[in-house]
Amino acid sequence: MKTRFLLHEEELPHRWYNVAADLDRPLDPPLDPRTNEPLSPEALAALFPRTCIEQEMCSDRFVDIPEPVQEVYRRWRPTPLQRAVNLERALGTPARIYFKYEGGSPTGSHKANTAVAQAYYNMVEGTKRLTTETGAGQWGSALAFACANFGLECTVFMVRVSYDQKPYRRAMIRLFGAKILPSPSSRTQAGQAVLAMHPDSPGSLGIAISEAIEEALHGERTKYSLGSVLNHVLLHQTVIGLEAIQQLDLAGEWPDVVVGCVGGGSNFAGLALPFFGEAQAGRRSRPRFLAVEPVVCPTLTRGEFRYDFGDTARLTPLLKMYTLGADFVPPAIHAGGLRYHGMAPIVSRLVADGVIEPLAYAQKEVFESAVLFAQSEGIIPAPETAHAVHAAIELARRCAETGEEKVILIGFSGHGHFDIAAYDSVVQGIG
Amino acid sequence: MKTRFLLHEEELPHRWYNVAADLDRPLDPPLDPRTNEPLSPEALAALFPRTCIEQEMCSDRFVDIPEPVQEVYRRWRPTPLQRAVNLERALGTPARIYFKYEGGSPTGSHKANTAVAQAYYNMVEGTKRLTTETGAGQWGSALAFACANFGLECTVFMVRVSYDQKPYRRAMIRLFGAKILPSPSSRTQAGQAVLAMHPDSPGSLGIAISEAIEEALHGERTKYSLGSVLNHVLLHQTVIGLEAIQQLDLAGEWPDVVVGCVGGGSNFAGLALPFFGEAQAGRRSRPRFLAVEPVVCPTLTRGEFRYDFGDTARLTPLLKMYTLGADFVPPAIHAGGLRYHGMAPIVSRLVADGVIEPLAYAQKEVFESAVLFAQSEGIIPAPETAHAVHAAIELARRCAETGEEKVILIGFSGHGHFDIAAYDSVVQGIG
Repeated sequence: MKTRFLLHEEELPHRWYNVAADLDRPLDPPLDPRTNEPLSPEALAALFPRTCIEQEMCSDRFVDIPEPVQEVYRRWRPTPLQRAVNLERALGTPARIYFKYEGGSPTGSHKANTAVAQAYYNMVEGTKRLTTETGAGQWGSALAFACANFGLECTVFMVRVSYDQKPYRRAMIRLFGAKILPSPSSRTQAGQAVLAMHPDSPGSLGIAISEAIEEALHGERTKYSLGSVLNHVLLHQTVIGLEAIQQLDLAGEWPDVVVGCVGGGSNFAGLALPFFGEAQAGRRSRPRFLAVEPVVCPTLTRGEFRYDFGDTARLTPLLKMYTLGADFVPPAIHAGGLRYHGMAPIVSRLVADGVIEPLAYAQKEVFESAVLFAQSEGIIPAPETAHAVHAAIELARRCAETGEEKVILIGFSGHGHFDIAAYDSVVQGIG
Repeated sequence: MKTRFLLHEEELPHRWYNVAADLDRPLDPPLDPRTNEPLSPEALAALFPRTCIEQEMCSDRFVDIPEPVQEVYRRWRPTPLQRAVNLERALGTPARIYFKYEGGSPTGSHKANTAVAQAYYNMVEGTKRLTTETGAGQWGSALAFACANFGLECTVFMVRVSYDQKPYRRAMIRLFGAKILPSPSSRTQAGQAVLAMHPDSPGSLGIAISEAIEEALHGERTKYSLGSVLNHVLLHQTVIGLEAIQQLDLAGEWPDVVVGCVGGGSNFAGLALPFFGEAQAGRRSRPRFLAVEPVVCPTLTRGEFRYDFGDTARLTPLLKMYTLGADFVPPAIHAGGLRYHGMAPIVSRLVADGVIEPLAYAQKEVFESAVLFAQSEGIIPAPETAHAVHAAIELARRCAETGEEKVILIGFSGHGHFDIAAYDSVVQGIG
């Protein structure tokens, strides 16, 4: 039985898919918090390169992937689509479970897809250094890799709890030549303000974003790079879903359900949006889209859909999104990449419209499913990815009861090689 | 420019290549240490399944890969062949550097290739449990994965110093469902004897082998599994070189030099032997074969070619090989997989015959090259693999001086995700 679907490098998509062309009405624009008026593109120019701002506002259905970006992509893309036959057997389910595996990128997750694009556009437009934040370190290591590739300097503010919990990921960022600081740090006013009130703050993505933005605004030829949430970031990630569609064609399948984890929403959107586009074009049926988050950071399941800041220090524009409030600091779960108070405006809109269904699970059940996946398939999911895996396993178990032969597609956003310590405690608890 | 050469899953080799058919005279046989006479196959039957013993003695040029083994291989094989263009640019070399990337296996190295085959043959022949030893943990995790896949139990004796120093690799072994004990343990007589004399013994591979063998001999339907050195292990690894030949054909290349690291010799042989076979058959020119070891464990460059035991406790048959003496204890370098006193008899013979050239490098220069590779190509080599990378970089630098456009093929045996702590100290030292 064929279980792995590979594309040759010449089958790598040459264009990203832009969902803005297929929404029934435009997204609510980002607002300038001083005026509550829609933000002008110029207002973003201090932070982002021109091309990324254009992509943020763009309504073309497809956007060309620059050849130098494709060249870097080809080092690990197209990524494999794999059928989890052993997992299906272990579950005794008639469901067919596929996963799109992004763990083979240089830094082990989907984050490299947009890191390479953003570093490239910055390089072309004369940026010398990029600043960013990172939670568990997936995004920070991806941007460090991309900057090393295009000869840019890189400064990463890493959420303190992850900085302390994940020394290997921190070391990887340094290995790629980037500078890394625990956040909140004393380097920025935003960090100082938090430390003054909470000297033992575990940090949050919201705080780290404030620090990275402040650092970019004060640096020479320095810009800021965000690893999720924004439209252009989601755009770059659609290479995942575009490949998956080609690969499911090879398998002769179309998914009934597409499931991914959501922190800021980019990995989920990167997989799901091209399937949405196919349905909007009338070419295929629309799958169910399941966006999975942790119960302790329930942005989509418990948050409000309203304008809010993307960061704690309120330096960002106002975005219309699901939010738990810009001050929300989630508890220190292992899935650091899902500890974000907000959600991509595109994902938020599609949740509000009922196209995407949100789900929340607790850490323990998520890890139990991740262990089952690892023992069946031999691949260890990142704690973030484990949320998607758990939701898929729950679906497949239901199919075992009902006899339904559903086709389930998992967005396997990254491997858990740097999260083994987290597994160790959980496996000892389970085993 | 095309830089990545992928094969579809149906292009996975269906047969392993057996170099025994192409040697100009048979290998010197393993001897029974009690009689100094060639060992009978029956003498090995208590430890290994019948099929592995047959493969150990086999002289057919090709051996079929069983379909269930191919099915597991296809989860990560064929593995990519990649051209290291960025590294070439960084070196300013006219050489073309390719690497065959084995880091994408479930446990991150080539070890899974033989672990899956050995677990399969054991399962078919009714084995219920496998025992083994592991140093740094690459082999232990690969066998744990393979046993989980075929429903076998697995007991791993891990050298105590590594058990304490490498909690991530230890946790990975447990995650795949294996039992893991620090060696020396109180579970075996061999372990008890050591502990009685040295309660704080850090352990050694020699002691761990003794424990694993004793455990196998006393267990019901329990056999023992070795991750390198033996002919059948090298046979299973030839899938690497067979794929690489197909992929270099796609690239329109034939290597001038094939370079790999050597501990017991299996990853190097797995890549190199099929190229040797092509040359013996008169179809292609014979590349230079470079086998790279650490200066502090200089088995090939400083050892003697003679009969010796495979373990410190002298429980194994006598093998004709390069050896530093069964009592040799190498210092605790990061490349734990290269800390072995002996060498595969096949590799040893070809070194003695001048077909394979041995080279030895020091840890510091090896790590400096590994950092350059990681920063150029975005992939972090295991400390063992880094030895091959360093030798290739030295060759490419010489080409930059002479202007020679050599084609260099690196055996990239595994990633360094579990060795980041080692890098961290070195990068801080370098950077």
